[in-house]
Amino acid sequence: MSYKPSIPKGTRDFAPAQMARRNFIFDTIKAVFKKYGYQPIETPAMENLETLTGKYGEEGDRLIFKILKRGASFDKALAKAKEENETVAFSEEALRYDLTVPFARFVVQHQNELNFPFKRYQIQPVWRADRPQRGRYREFYQCDVDSIGSNSLLNEVELIQIMDEVFTKLGIKATIKLNNRKVLQGICESIGLEDRFIDITIGLDKLDKIGENGVKKELSEKGLSDSVLNDLMKFFAVSDSTTEEDTLKHLTSLMSDTSEIGKKGLEELSYIFKSLTMLNLHSAKVKIDPTLARGLNYYTGAIFEVVCNDFPSSICGGGRYDDLTGIFGLKDVSGVGISFGADRIYDVMEEQHLFPKTLDSSLDVLFINFGEKEAQYCLHLATQLRDKGYSVEVYPDSAKMKKQMKYADGRNVRKVVMIGSQEMEAQTMSVKDMASGDQKEMNLNELIQVL
Amino acid sequence: MSYKPSIPKGTRDFAPAQMARRNFIFDTIKAVFKKYGYQPIETPAMENLETLTGKYGEEGDRLIFKILKRGASFDKALAKAKEENETVAFSEEALRYDLTVPFARFVVQHQNELNFPFKRYQIQPVWRADRPQRGRYREFYQCDVDSIGSNSLLNEVELIQIMDEVFTKLGIKATIKLNNRKVLQGICESIGLEDRFIDITIGLDKLDKIGENGVKKELSEKGLSDSVLNDLMKFFAVSDSTTEEDTLKHLTSLMSDTSEIGKKGLEELSYIFKSLTMLNLHSAKVKIDPTLARGLNYYTGAIFEVVCNDFPSSICGGGRYDDLTGIFGLKDVSGVGISFGADRIYDVMEEQHLFPKTLDSSLDVLFINFGEKEAQYCLHLATQLRDKGYSVEVYPDSAKMKKQMKYADGRNVRKVVMIGSQEMEAQTMSVKDMASGDQKEMNLNELIQVL
Repeated sequence: MSYKPSIPKGTRDFAPAQMARRNFIFDTIKAVFKKYGYQPIETPAMENLETLTGKYGEEGDRLIFKILKRGASFDKALAKAKEENETVAFSEEALRYDLTVPFARFVVQHQNELNFPFKRYQIQPVWRADRPQRGRYREFYQCDVDSIGSNSLLNEVELIQIMDEVFTKLGIKATIKLNNRKVLQGICESIGLEDRFIDITIGLDKLDKIGENGVKKELSEKGLSDSVLNDLMKFFAVSDSTTEEDTLKHLTSLMSDTSEIGKKGLEELSYIFKSLTMLNLHSAKVKIDPTLARGLNYYTGAIFEVVCNDFPSSICGGGRYDDLTGIFGLKDVSGVGISFGADRIYDVMEEQHLFPKTLDSSLDVLFINFGEKEAQYCLHLATQLRDKGYSVEVYPDSAKMKKQMKYADGRNVRKVVMIGSQEMEAQTMSVKDMASGDQKEMNLNELIQVL
Repeated sequence: MSYKPSIPKGTRDFAPAQMARRNFIFDTIKAVFKKYGYQPIETPAMENLETLTGKYGEEGDRLIFKILKRGASFDKALAKAKEENETVAFSEEALRYDLTVPFARFVVQHQNELNFPFKRYQIQPVWRADRPQRGRYREFYQCDVDSIGSNSLLNEVELIQIMDEVFTKLGIKATIKLNNRKVLQGICESIGLEDRFIDITIGLDKLDKIGENGVKKELSEKGLSDSVLNDLMKFFAVSDSTTEEDTLKHLTSLMSDTSEIGKKGLEELSYIFKSLTMLNLHSAKVKIDPTLARGLNYYTGAIFEVVCNDFPSSICGGGRYDDLTGIFGLKDVSGVGISFGADRIYDVMEEQHLFPKTLDSSLDVLFINFGEKEAQYCLHLATQLRDKGYSVEVYPDSAKMKKQMKYADGRNVRKVVMIGSQEMEAQTMSVKDMASGDQKEMNLNELIQVL
């Protein structure tokens, strides 16, 4: 019966120290979401399989964790699979793969109870049967925030303010890359390749990984001529030092006059950028990046991606989608949203030493246990301290002093209180400050003061 | 592609109003756990199937949600099932069924990194393929708090203080039923039925559902004679009005002198009760109930169950277990823990109108949108209010006044701010208090004061 216990690959246990850091991230994000009027929702871990399949492409479908049928349903499926040589469904339910599709399903299912524009946030784990590797897990949290039911670009502006405020509060120097899918469509139209829009966005999306030459090679293999590729690359001829105003001018000068969608995209991009300039962000830098494409096909307007120094992957991203709920039968509802990658943000903060030091000290006071009578006496004092809001323990066993002090060290206790029979009689206590090592006699009120 | 979206039976979506109430419960519980020095951990939703199977009895095993194998593993399993007519595993992983077994697995797996006694809490969903019915779901949250690695009864005392404090804070009038499995063992020994301990506890556990006669009938069918049943029932001859001191005396007088375990159990029960009397609980009533059995076989000492008026099921329960980690190879580690049933607590609070009214008003200020220029102006004011910590929205579209006010109503906004071109010029604003309906002219500082 006994064996070495382990957990499924790609999943993780979180010990208290990690939890404190993760909660610091979640609490910071939630506090900002709330200030902007977003409200929390939660959806079940399991969705009906048909809600999920076909929404993430062929590769995505393969990575969905499915729930095995039970009892009679399973027996029936197995019997059928044995009899007939056909594909049989062994599953009707699956674990959610992201928060976007469940959110779309939620909005459609509850449309009559919701107050539009519906501004929701959702912080829950998702599951993907990806090959686990450094920084990529099979269970990880997404923190999504979306506003649905309003076309106004003020929503985009607000989401950028949120990204700025979250990363400022976390101490991460963020660059928010900004583009617009309509601009990308306009670029395709301008070079006569409106029907190759998807190939081009998929190619561009790999720019970070395979470089400009890699993208050119891939698109050339898909049949784009050298002259067309040159025209395309002209649009992207801006550098890190180009100002956003110049990038907008550059794009405007190249955009074909006949591309209505391209002009609309540039208008949206300018509007958002101008609004942000007037609002003064806290610390994030906004960079208009015409090569930003975002792989997902449901984006139709503004797109965002956040990067930070010395970290290879984006830590936040999102965009405007005009018809996400259409797949569930609710047409013409536009929304815009972003998703914070909590695990990547954790890694950045760990590498760059951004977590506050005080997070680890979860315990204010530990009473050393000198025996039955003393412990009962300490319980009363502990209760009084807890009523003041402090986190307090009485060591449960009258173990050796060394063992109790080792526990105090491991728990990062602020003050250790020692009350033997003498102190009990004198109604006093010996208090050791664990940071300085200083030890002093005092009474309960004095202890409360030094806490 | 389009169909009426739904979710798997027994699962639920949580809309913002429900989330606010659920979070009120979770936050209250967490704050109390922390004050007593308990630290959070999280474990993955999926565990290896072998970690879970055999831990919950035959019935429990059937209710575990299993993850279907994917790709080549699935093909192999199917091929094997078709070829040979034997039982083939279509699954290697499963969703956790409770938080207790994952906790035991966690402690054994991480034993060298942990600081014993290890005091942890864990608030996460669990999944059971139970037949859904009122108050019983296939996905629900458990809030577990355990102290492991200490035999001291002070842990039991502390957990009772925690139950008292949680239910006091939530406004629930709780009765904490207290018993000890050693007392039950002693009772069995006293009537010569030490080998029928499990039958008797399983029978007793149904007392609430089937009554005394039902239990007698069931035990009689299992071969217990009428005379032995009468002896058994004598132990339980205490009423709601019997004082705890008298219950202890009654049990002591009937307990056989030769039952060491029975005497030990009574000693523990008295110690815990005496400690609590000295500590003065806030509002909970402690009731020693010799019929309390708790169905789970891993309990070996104190057992608890919390009930409240006008609600049929227990809302919290737990006990001491001396060898939970033994199943994973770590012997002789005793622990004690309790689990709060968040969904049942929610139902009680809903039925008894115990949720604070203020929970619903998530939004402090809504700026009405009168057009492009006005909205941009309001964005600045909104930013200033958010910097003060308020939750603020600018309505994103310059929709009809009626639509915007309907939104304000639906969101339970405290103050609606109207700034048209006149107010912009005069640097003033018209503020409507949504509770009273009063409307006043003021400036930003005055608004901050009335908030």
